[in-house]
Amino acid sequence: MLSFESDYTTGAHPAILQRLAETNLEAVSGYGEDPYCASAKEKIRRACQCPEADVWFLTGGTQTNATVISTMLQSYEGVVAARTGHVSTHEAGAIEYSGHKVLTVPQHAGKIDAGELERFLETFYQDGNHEHMVFPGMVYLSHPTEYGTLYTKAELERLSDICRRYEMPLYMDGARLGYGLMSLQSDMTLADVARLCDVFYIGGTKVGALCGEAVVFTKRNTPRHFLPQIKQRGALLAKGRLIGIQFDVLFTDDLYWKISRHAIEMAERLKALFHEKNCQIYLESPTNQQFIVLEDAKLEKLKKQVAFSFWEKADETHTIVRFATSWSTTEEDLAQLAELL
Amino acid sequence: MLSFESDYTTGAHPAILQRLAETNLEAVSGYGEDPYCASAKEKIRRACQCPEADVWFLTGGTQTNATVISTMLQSYEGVVAARTGHVSTHEAGAIEYSGHKVLTVPQHAGKIDAGELERFLETFYQDGNHEHMVFPGMVYLSHPTEYGTLYTKAELERLSDICRRYEMPLYMDGARLGYGLMSLQSDMTLADVARLCDVFYIGGTKVGALCGEAVVFTKRNTPRHFLPQIKQRGALLAKGRLIGIQFDVLFTDDLYWKISRHAIEMAERLKALFHEKNCQIYLESPTNQQFIVLEDAKLEKLKKQVAFSFWEKADETHTIVRFATSWSTTEEDLAQLAELL
Amino acid sequence: MLSFESDYTTGAHPAILQRLAETNLEAVSGYGEDPYCASAKEKIRRACQCPEADVWFLTGGTQTNATVISTMLQSYEGVVAARTGHVSTHEAGAIEYSGHKVLTVPQHAGKIDAGELERFLETFYQDGNHEHMVFPGMVYLSHPTEYGTLYTKAELERLSDICRRYEMPLYMDGARLGYGLMSLQSDMTLADVARLCDVFYIGGTKVGALCGEAVVFTKRNTPRHFLPQIKQRGALLAKGRLIGIQFDVLFTDDLYWKISRHAIEMAERLKALFHEKNCQIYLESPTNQQFIVLEDAKLEKLKKQVAFSFWEKADETHTIVRFATSWSTTEEDLAQLAELL
Amino acid sequence: MLSFESDYTTGAHPAILQRLAETNLEAVSGYGEDPYCASAKEKIRRACQCPEADVWFLTGGTQTNATVISTMLQSYEGVVAARTGHVSTHEAGAIEYSGHKVLTVPQHAGKIDAGELERFLETFYQDGNHEHMVFPGMVYLSHPTEYGTLYTKAELERLSDICRRYEMPLYMDGARLGYGLMSLQSDMTLADVARLCDVFYIGGTKVGALCGEAVVFTKRNTPRHFLPQIKQRGALLAKGRLIGIQFDVLFTDDLYWKISRHAIEMAERLKALFHEKNCQIYLESPTNQQFIVLEDAKLEKLKKQVAFSFWEKADETHTIVRFATSWSTTEEDLAQLAELL
Repeated sequence: MLSFESDYTTGAHPAILQRLAETNLEAVSGYGEDPYCASAKEKIRRACQCPEADVWFLTGGTQTNATVISTMLQSYEGVVAARTGHVSTHEAGAIEYSGHKVLTVPQHAGKIDAGELERFLETFYQDGNHEHMVFPGMVYLSHPTEYGTLYTKAELERLSDICRRYEMPLYMDGARLGYGLMSLQSDMTLADVARLCDVFYIGGTKVGALCGEAVVFTKRNTPRHFLPQIKQRGALLAKGRLIGIQFDVLFTDDLYWKISRHAIEMAERLKALFHEKNCQIYLESPTNQQFIVLEDAKLEKLKKQVAFSFWEKADETHTIVRFATSWSTTEEDLAQLAELL
Repeated sequence: MLSFESDYTTGAHPAILQRLAETNLEAVSGYGEDPYCASAKEKIRRACQCPEADVWFLTGGTQTNATVISTMLQSYEGVVAARTGHVSTHEAGAIEYSGHKVLTVPQHAGKIDAGELERFLETFYQDGNHEHMVFPGMVYLSHPTEYGTLYTKAELERLSDICRRYEMPLYMDGARLGYGLMSLQSDMTLADVARLCDVFYIGGTKVGALCGEAVVFTKRNTPRHFLPQIKQRGALLAKGRLIGIQFDVLFTDDLYWKISRHAIEMAERLKALFHEKNCQIYLESPTNQQFIVLEDAKLEKLKKQVAFSFWEKADETHTIVRFATSWSTTEEDLAQLAELL
Repeated sequence: MLSFESDYTTGAHPAILQRLAETNLEAVSGYGEDPYCASAKEKIRRACQCPEADVWFLTGGTQTNATVISTMLQSYEGVVAARTGHVSTHEAGAIEYSGHKVLTVPQHAGKIDAGELERFLETFYQDGNHEHMVFPGMVYLSHPTEYGTLYTKAELERLSDICRRYEMPLYMDGARLGYGLMSLQSDMTLADVARLCDVFYIGGTKVGALCGEAVVFTKRNTPRHFLPQIKQRGALLAKGRLIGIQFDVLFTDDLYWKISRHAIEMAERLKALFHEKNCQIYLESPTNQQFIVLEDAKLEKLKKQVAFSFWEKADETHTIVRFATSWSTTEEDLAQLAELL
Repeated sequence: MLSFESDYTTGAHPAILQRLAETNLEAVSGYGEDPYCASAKEKIRRACQCPEADVWFLTGGTQTNATVISTMLQSYEGVVAARTGHVSTHEAGAIEYSGHKVLTVPQHAGKIDAGELERFLETFYQDGNHEHMVFPGMVYLSHPTEYGTLYTKAELERLSDICRRYEMPLYMDGARLGYGLMSLQSDMTLADVARLCDVFYIGGTKVGALCGEAVVFTKRNTPRHFLPQIKQRGALLAKGRLIGIQFDVLFTDDLYWKISRHAIEMAERLKALFHEKNCQIYLESPTNQQFIVLEDAKLEKLKKQVAFSFWEKADETHTIVRFATSWSTTEEDLAQLAELL
């Protein structure tokens, strides 16, 4: 069936599968101590224009968020996030499972407002009683956000500046980072991200890999003995090559950026298509996720022929749904959808 | 370089890579809700001769142990394991990270002795003060053990019987279960394992998969809301198909058993080879790991041409090393090693 | 110095100290296995008109909240609380330290609204994706709230009804329960609380004891092996008599209620005094905490002669402060304050 | 009934109760910010001859151990303890509840052997694979031990030296420190303890207080934001005065040492009494706990008239029991016991 359900419904970019096959019988060391991981890390460091960056490979997004956040926070600290941040709402309490609170601030189309963050921090430290409260220990943001929206470079600079003044690391969840940086509206590069964030991850799972996220510590700030801490959280892959090879391929000849750009092109055409068909767009996302308002009768009919995601009820008779493109979306998919609409 | 370093140095069985390629562009739901997971689960249930078995896929061994143990134990309970059990020593404290103690009993070539287990439990409940102690909440054993040794069916029956009397689940870590059940000395089948254990896992990572372990709950005893608990531990793969497809292939036409049997054959010839060359075998393992005592001078020379694992010092001038075969070990590998020795 | 800083600034009711002295040299068993604990439990059961109630003694409020909540929740569950609930904001993340999320709902003068709670639960279970979210596992409310306000019996009945429909325990933090039930506005008895809540605690620390809170499980629902779980959380007092004796005294001849009523009388006169002096009352609390708006100049002068608590800034030149009465507030204290104002 | 059951069966030294009564109506700040805590801390600093010592008051032993250990360890570290150490066996898993492993070394009458500790650490760091293991992060010892035995100054110096070489804090559980330092066999002073340990606690609960332990950080090494970490663990007493006053009394005019010495004198006479009566002493303890072997028939008869603790079975017809003296043991108690024996 035609699917716009999410950006993780298909397998991996074919170049990845090919490389897995080519290298399959080579015997290499486990736990990330293989030449493919080494090569991929070097390519990512270069792409970040950050020679001192320290790169680690983990398997999925929730695992990455929980591992990074719980190893960077002190016991008495929590992570500040937008109320709609993935760590706040859709990770089954993985941060709390690690013993830390998610301190929420308001969201604006999924984004944190720098002014509000600053007031939150000021108020916290003004309060004489704050030794009975959870200390804000780092700031989490997703880019693109859960709503497909983007921070501008100026916005990220201001957030980064606040974090430095309060000596808190700024952490970017880049599950869909490729789609963010390749957006037509993006005014940032990967080097900007590396410069402004203390730690971030480059998403693989949602951008063409079978699995895998690349965590980048940019300020010589890797938690001490990070490997045992990964192991302790059940997040150390025996065959580390599986993720190393994938990122090595994705960061060869700009494949990561090319397939991200492709998904953005498909998303722009998808948006145009919905406009054409007079569908109401709930949120004009500049990335690969589009939120559409469908009449319920139409929704019921449509979902027999195309897969998409339920987001939330808009009113009694309308529903907001999500259509996502990805590296594997084709022009044929769009043509088929046009016909169905 | 020639490698007997471990059973996870190469990629995946070629049939797995082929199937990943064939299914690559099909869009399926995430988080294990795809037809490949469903098919693999059904095949495993049949292989276990346990129609009510509930099968779940996780990514690696430490993750699986921590997830199963921490979701089955109550807060006041710990897991009983041999002092050399993987959960006791080589998982960087993953069980304790989840809040639970590993209660150790002595090991005999890696195995728990039923009599000693029984006395441990009797003593615990005799002690009037046991409300200040950690309650034994389940029993963990590895089969094969960390030393490549095996429980007999009679031994497992006795352990299972003790666990039932004390109303504790018996959990088998089957990271190398294929090599165990295909050993020439094994008197057990997968159905025996399913009958005698309350939960166990069939190892994929070390038996031909890129990653993945299949957890089997055999007594309608899956922890409630197991999926959110997996998610919470960062162990839920978005593209669940990656593991589903692999186990679907491994449990088609007995591939899992065939490649396990092949590794055993290679291990038996490896043992014969060491005997021939008058090397001292530290432990006559019936499975795919062989522990050899090498003179240090010989070791230094050998390790330039073949990879193997350091185990521990035997004395001032000798070292115990481990040679492991796997599904991907070839006759040529053995011939090459024979020459080097 | 004259103090209205809080209800835990003085020691214990003299009758408690006297009884501690009288019983001091009797040798009794530890860990709550003494006759004083037994007697106090029986008196509390009777006061609750709940013969099957199971009573436990813990040392302080945060400890009690964390122990009760973490032992009653499943791993995948969180506790629902008002955004201003003590567990949400002023316990340094004790709930999250135990691995659980505090799921916040809006507050209305510190209270949860039953309608909003119901919609929160409905929305949660409607959302198809809720297996990636934290399950609401119990409801926490404080009575009186952190703002000194009270639930009516009808409100508590509605909350209790919702909890039963969703099969979630209702937990009342009664740190100041005496002041709540003795309020002139209260339409509830302790028996009502026992009937409507699944678990609650009767606060000692803030109502005349040196330390100690009495947890009451009202529905034969004590967590299994609760004692080791208390011990594991560092909350088991060796000399359990210390708390047993205190509650035994407090629940003899209605002392708990008499001293609570006294604090309420003092609070009513305090309120009257502020009215008289034309001070703006921020929140007309029916219990022992009064929130007053003071001009900053006046505040600075006043605080040299009387202790009270900073609450929050009202505007550029005014501040909200808290005055609390307690069992030990005297008419002389009020007279002195009247003079100072 | 006559009781030698433990050293926490009676209340508090009368001077403590008297002081609690004298100060009862003074209004002071909560959470340890009162003048009695300040005074007690200063007195303890002086007694330790360690002006830079940082002193904190907690309520009980398990709470203290868990709080100190979990705030000083990194996530990847465990605490090294004797197999019979209180944290290893009798705290219901409180250390593991905080996420950390207890790494056990052999015990010799309850003590750690420095040579064995050193070999344990050497082996750990020799093992190439130690990144998959729990790092030894601090050393825990009890003094007196659970068997009433004592380290000599030379032994403690050697342990301290090893800890410094490995950059691990040395932590002493001094639940019965008074009885240890006042033992006729002790060659150490409190100043020695402060010099050789990085952190230790002076037990109050078992040495004349109603509750309370005084934690002393001796090397300007208090964990950052220790107060919120105490609060987070439910260990912050609202009326901190309760413990402050008790330690203030205990460290006035050497009361702590005088009552400890008294208990030792009583214990020496108890030992003499058992010798006289030809009872077999299982372990010749130099402190206040004596372990006696009783014939079961005699035990049954005796326990009707005097309380003592079951320790363990010695053989089919004999049992090891513990008799403990304390600050409150009297000559009459001994005379009565003599008669009964």
